Amino acid sequence: MPAIKRLHHLLSMKHMTNDKIHHLFSIARKMEQMNEIPSFKGKFAANLFLEPSTRTKSSFHIAQRRLGMDVLQLDGTDSSLVKGESLYDTLKTLESIGVELAVVRQSESGLLDHCAEGLNLSLINAGDGCGEHPTQSLLDLYTIHEHFQYFQGLDVCIAGDLKHSRVARSNAFALKQLGANVFFVTKPEWQDDSLSNHYITMDEAVDRCDVLMLLRIQHERHEKGDATSSYLKEFGLTTEREARMKPDSIILHPAPVNRGVEIDGSLVESGKSRIFKQMANGVNVRMAVIEALMKGEL
Amino acid sequence: MPAIKRLHHLLSMKHMTNDKIHHLFSIARKMEQMNEIPSFKGKFAANLFLEPSTRTKSSFHIAQRRLGMDVLQLDGTDSSLVKGESLYDTLKTLESIGVELAVVRQSESGLLDHCAEGLNLSLINAGDGCGEHPTQSLLDLYTIHEHFQYFQGLDVCIAGDLKHSRVARSNAFALKQLGANVFFVTKPEWQDDSLSNHYITMDEAVDRCDVLMLLRIQHERHEKGDATSSYLKEFGLTTEREARMKPDSIILHPAPVNRGVEIDGSLVESGKSRIFKQMANGVNVRMAVIEALMKGEL
Amino acid sequence: MPAIKRLHHLLSMKHMTNDKIHHLFSIARKMEQMNEIPSFKGKFAANLFLEPSTRTKSSFHIAQRRLGMDVLQLDGTDSSLVKGESLYDTLKTLESIGVELAVVRQSESGLLDHCAEGLNLSLINAGDGCGEHPTQSLLDLYTIHEHFQYFQGLDVCIAGDLKHSRVARSNAFALKQLGANVFFVTKPEWQDDSLSNHYITMDEAVDRCDVLMLLRIQHERHEKGDATSSYLKEFGLTTEREARMKPDSIILHPAPVNRGVEIDGSLVESGKSRIFKQMANGVNVRMAVIEALMKGEL
Repeated sequence: MPAIKRLHHLLSMKHMTNDKIHHLFSIARKMEQMNEIPSFKGKFAANLFLEPSTRTKSSFHIAQRRLGMDVLQLDGTDSSLVKGESLYDTLKTLESIGVELAVVRQSESGLLDHCAEGLNLSLINAGDGCGEHPTQSLLDLYTIHEHFQYFQGLDVCIAGDLKHSRVARSNAFALKQLGANVFFVTKPEWQDDSLSNHYITMDEAVDRCDVLMLLRIQHERHEKGDATSSYLKEFGLTTEREARMKPDSIILHPAPVNRGVEIDGSLVESGKSRIFKQMANGVNVRMAVIEALMKGEL
Repeated sequence: MPAIKRLHHLLSMKHMTNDKIHHLFSIARKMEQMNEIPSFKGKFAANLFLEPSTRTKSSFHIAQRRLGMDVLQLDGTDSSLVKGESLYDTLKTLESIGVELAVVRQSESGLLDHCAEGLNLSLINAGDGCGEHPTQSLLDLYTIHEHFQYFQGLDVCIAGDLKHSRVARSNAFALKQLGANVFFVTKPEWQDDSLSNHYITMDEAVDRCDVLMLLRIQHERHEKGDATSSYLKEFGLTTEREARMKPDSIILHPAPVNRGVEIDGSLVESGKSRIFKQMANGVNVRMAVIEALMKGEL
Repeated sequence: MPAIKRLHHLLSMKHMTNDKIHHLFSIARKMEQMNEIPSFKGKFAANLFLEPSTRTKSSFHIAQRRLGMDVLQLDGTDSSLVKGESLYDTLKTLESIGVELAVVRQSESGLLDHCAEGLNLSLINAGDGCGEHPTQSLLDLYTIHEHFQYFQGLDVCIAGDLKHSRVARSNAFALKQLGANVFFVTKPEWQDDSLSNHYITMDEAVDRCDVLMLLRIQHERHEKGDATSSYLKEFGLTTEREARMKPDSIILHPAPVNRGVEIDGSLVESGKSRIFKQMANGVNVRMAVIEALMKGEL
C-alpha cells in the first residue's frame, strides 16, 4: 500500500482526491459550529494580493483570525514587488521573518508551482490569472453538497466565459471525479475544447440542471463592450428562465455579480440563489483548508 | 407612550435626540476610564474607506480593538469596487462572511441610507461627500460638553466653507436642539441659506463666542487658489483675533488643519485649542457609538 | 558621573554607544528563545510607510505583534498626507488617539529629528531617503556578531552605491566604533569622501574580508541603465569571486536583492550567505529595540 502523499500547499484541484475533499467538508462543518478555534494562536499568515479582491482577501482574513492566527496584508502597490523583487524572494522573505502560511493572488498562471519547491511555509493559491482558484472550487462544491448531500448523478451546468475562468476548469474536473454530469453554456469564442464538448444552450440548461453555476464576465480581462444586456438575453439567467428551473435546483455564482449581465439583479437574493451562502461557506471551507494543510492532514 | 425607535445604523445626526446624545456621552466617559473593554471579542468590524483618511480610520480601528473586535481594513483601490461591484453588494458580502459592523467613508451623499435597508449588520457613516459625518459631530459636541458641562445658551460660531462641510449642517442642527445659539462666518459664495441667516464677521465671532468651530478648507473639493493667506486675514483665526477671545472660550477644528489658512500655525496647540483633545475624545465617543449600536441601546 | 541619556526615539546610529548596542543584542537573544512576550498588550503601534516596503514593514509588524501590541498600518496613498497634512501633525494625531510607538519610512533625510521634539510617543526611523535606517544597521551588526562573537579586528568590506545608501554610513560608523576595519568598493561617481578613503577593488575585497556587505542598487533612486550585468562583472559578487573568499567569511545584503546585479543569483542561498538570516534576526532585533525604547532602557 503506497503512502498517502500529504500536501503542504494548495495550488490546484488536481491532487484533490474525493477522500480529501470529503475530509475537508467534515472539518468545515465542524468550523461552522464554532466561532473561534484558536488552533494556531501566535502563528503568522500573510495574504499577498497583487490583484484587487474584497471577498477572497477578507474571507481568508476572517478564517485566519478565527483560527487564532495573526495576519499580514500585503498588496501589490505598497510592497517590494514594485522594486522588482521576484515572488519567490518575497515569499522566502516572509518565511524568514516567521510567516507559516502565505495566501497569494497574482496574474501569472502556474507561477506558484515554480515558487513552492524551495519554500518552508504553506502556500495557498487564491487565484492565478486564468489558472486555478482551488478554495473557490471547494466552497462551490461544499455549497452543492450542503444542499443535495451527494454529487452522484447531479446535472451541473457551468455557464459563461470558460476560457478565462479560473474556476470552470477546476470545478468541471472535481465534479466529474465526484460523479456529477457537467454541461456547459458559452459563446463560441469562449469555448475551451480541452474542457468538454458537452455544450448546450441556456434554455436547455435551465430545464435540465440541478445546479446552475454562473461565471462572472471579467471586464478587467476583456475589451469593453463584451458585457451588455444582450448577454443576459442569450446566455444569462433572466427571470423567465429562472421560473422554469427545477423546484429543488440551485444557482451559484462566484461573485462579484454583474447584475443584469450574467443574472437579473432581482434573482441575486432569490430563493434558489446560494450566492451569499457560498461566501458564508467560504470562510469555513478556508478554515478547513488551513487547518488541514498546517496539520499535515491534506 | 410610543416605543422608542432603536437605531441599528448611525448614518445621520437627524435621529439623535438629546437623550440619545447624553446617553452616548455617559458611555464615552466610562470608556475614558478603561483601557480595554472586550465586549465584542471575536466579532468582526470592517472599515471601508474609499476616500483618504488617517484620523477617522485609525480612530475607529483603535476604538474597535479596544472593544475586542477584529478589524478588516478595506480601501478603494484594492477592493472589488474597482471591478464595478456596488456598495450594497460589497456590504452584503461582508455581512455574509461574518462582519457585524461596517464603517464606511465614500463620496456620494445619502448612498448609505439606500444600502442600509437590506443589511443585517450595523452601519456607521464615516463621511459621505458633502453630506454627514455623525461621529465627528458627536465628538465635537462631547468636547464642548466636557469643557462647559452644558449647552444651554452657549454662543457657538461655525466658520468656514459651510457649503461643502459635512459637519457644519449636523453640528448646527444638534447644537440648536441642545439649546445653544449658533452663528456662522463664511464667504458669500459658501453661504447655505437652508442652514441659517445668522451670518456675522470673524471679528464679531471672536468677541462674542464661547466656542469657535473652524472648518477645514477642503482643497480636494475646490479649485486651487481658494485657500491662501488672504483667507486667514479675512476669515481665519489670527493671533490678534485669538487674543480677543473670551477667557473661557475654546477653539475646535475637525482636522487636518491647514496651518496658516484657517488658523495661525502657532495656535494649533495653544491653551484654548481643543484640536488634539477632539481626536482623543473621538476614540471614546466611537467606542460609545459602537457599543450602543451593537447592544441595541441607541 | 553624568547621567546616562536615555533615548525615547531611535532615529540614527549616532547616539548608539557600544554598551547600548550590546545591551540590545542581549535582549534580542532573549527574544529569539521565546515566541510571544506580551509585554505591551493593549498598546498601539503605528507603521507609517510612505515608500514601498515588504520586509521592513512586515518585520516590524511581526515584532510588534509578538510583543502583544496592536498595529495600525498607514500607507502614503490612503492617508491624510495626500491632503497636505504635515508629518508632525499626522504623528501628533496618532499620539492623540493613543498610539505609543510610531515607525516611519519617508523620503526626506532628517525630517524625523525635526518632528520628534514635540511628540510624546516613541519614534523609530525605518528609512529616511538617503539618510539612515538604524534598525537595519543593528540587524546587520547582530548578524555579524552572531557569527564571529566579536568585532575587534574584523575586516568588513561595504560594496555598492555608497552615496545613496542609508545603511553604508551608519554601518561604517558603528563598525569602526566597535573595533572593525572598514573598507569600501564602489564606482568613482558613488564615492563619498566624508565616509572614507579606504577604497579597494572587489577582487581585493573578496580576498581579504571577513564580512562582505553588499548594498542594493536602488533602481528607484537612479536613472535606468545603471544596473546591468556589467555591474556584476566589475563590482558584484560572481561565483568565481565567492570561491576565493576566506572559509569563515560571510555575505550580507539588506535586500531586496537584484539577482545577477550585486550578486550572482545562485549565491543568494549559498553557505556563506546570511541574507535570509539577516531578515530572521531583524524581527528579534526590532523587538529588542521596541522593548528597550518603551521601557526607557536605551
